[in-house]
Amino acid sequence: MDFIIRKGEIKDMASVLELIKELADFENEPDAVEINMYDLIKDGFSANPSFKTIVAELEDKIVGMALFYPRYSTWKGNSIHLEDLLVKKDKRGLGIGKALYKSFLTYAHQQKVKRVEWVVLDWNKFAVEFYERSGAKVLNDWRTVQMDEKALSEYINKQG
Amino acid sequence: MDFIIRKGEIKDMASVLELIKELADFENEPDAVEINMYDLIKDGFSANPSFKTIVAELEDKIVGMALFYPRYSTWKGNSIHLEDLLVKKDKRGLGIGKALYKSFLTYAHQQKVKRVEWVVLDWNKFAVEFYERSGAKVLNDWRTVQMDEKALSEYINKQG
Repeated sequence: MDFIIRKGEIKDMASVLELIKELADFENEPDAVEINMYDLIKDGFSANPSFKTIVAELEDKIVGMALFYPRYSTWKGNSIHLEDLLVKKDKRGLGIGKALYKSFLTYAHQQKVKRVEWVVLDWNKFAVEFYERSGAKVLNDWRTVQMDEKALSEYINKQG
Repeated sequence: MDFIIRKGEIKDMASVLELIKELADFENEPDAVEINMYDLIKDGFSANPSFKTIVAELEDKIVGMALFYPRYSTWKGNSIHLEDLLVKKDKRGLGIGKALYKSFLTYAHQQKVKRVEWVVLDWNKFAVEFYERSGAKVLNDWRTVQMDEKALSEYINKQG
């Protein structure tokens, strides 16, 4: 089966949202996705877009995607963050994930960034090993910290 | 001692770089800082800047700073990443760190982002506890993955 790897377009965002929801489900957070298709279109295709996507197309359907955006390292300079990379469950084992990964890394290399970065769940051993084999480093002593809108609002108001 | 919290400007970048180096030293990576003052000026003050800063000024010297930029969550939408927040070692205990933190969170709240995010070293118990007390969540099962320019180049060339 031949698949096509190409830049994501507005028409792909409904499928991209489905993939985002499938990933949230896999990560045991099925209700975490609060954005909708219109948010993806607005945020990804404005004059100053918040992200770019690469999609994998198989038999006229979107079966995988990578979503990424610039970041900045105060050690290295410009970098790119890979927010999501996934392939539909029933389309795995065809090399689509690896093709998306390579396409993303090639894009990053062309942008001459000093680093690419992403996060992985520590129990996702398959992904951890795949990334390590590709030359990436998993940093075991850093932890992600998040404050959501509600906590943000509470903290600011509490502080007066 | 009174300090001022304000937006970082081009003239502050030499001091911001010193603080970045001090932080790298604290994180046991004294040689990790590859950028210079001109990179910070170019990257932070172009038409489409890669980051913004807030600085703390005490007796006409920059003694602390926060550096941050937009990110995108495929669950929540627009978010902001806090890359660095630090206060010069000999100026701690004066409330400057907390004032920077609050100023950054207030800015994020004004931007109506759905989430703010950063990373912390797991052995930095003081920071972990400070963040948790403020309402932030430390995610213990996610790991940061990085691929540097060299590994990127090697992976792409190896794959042909």
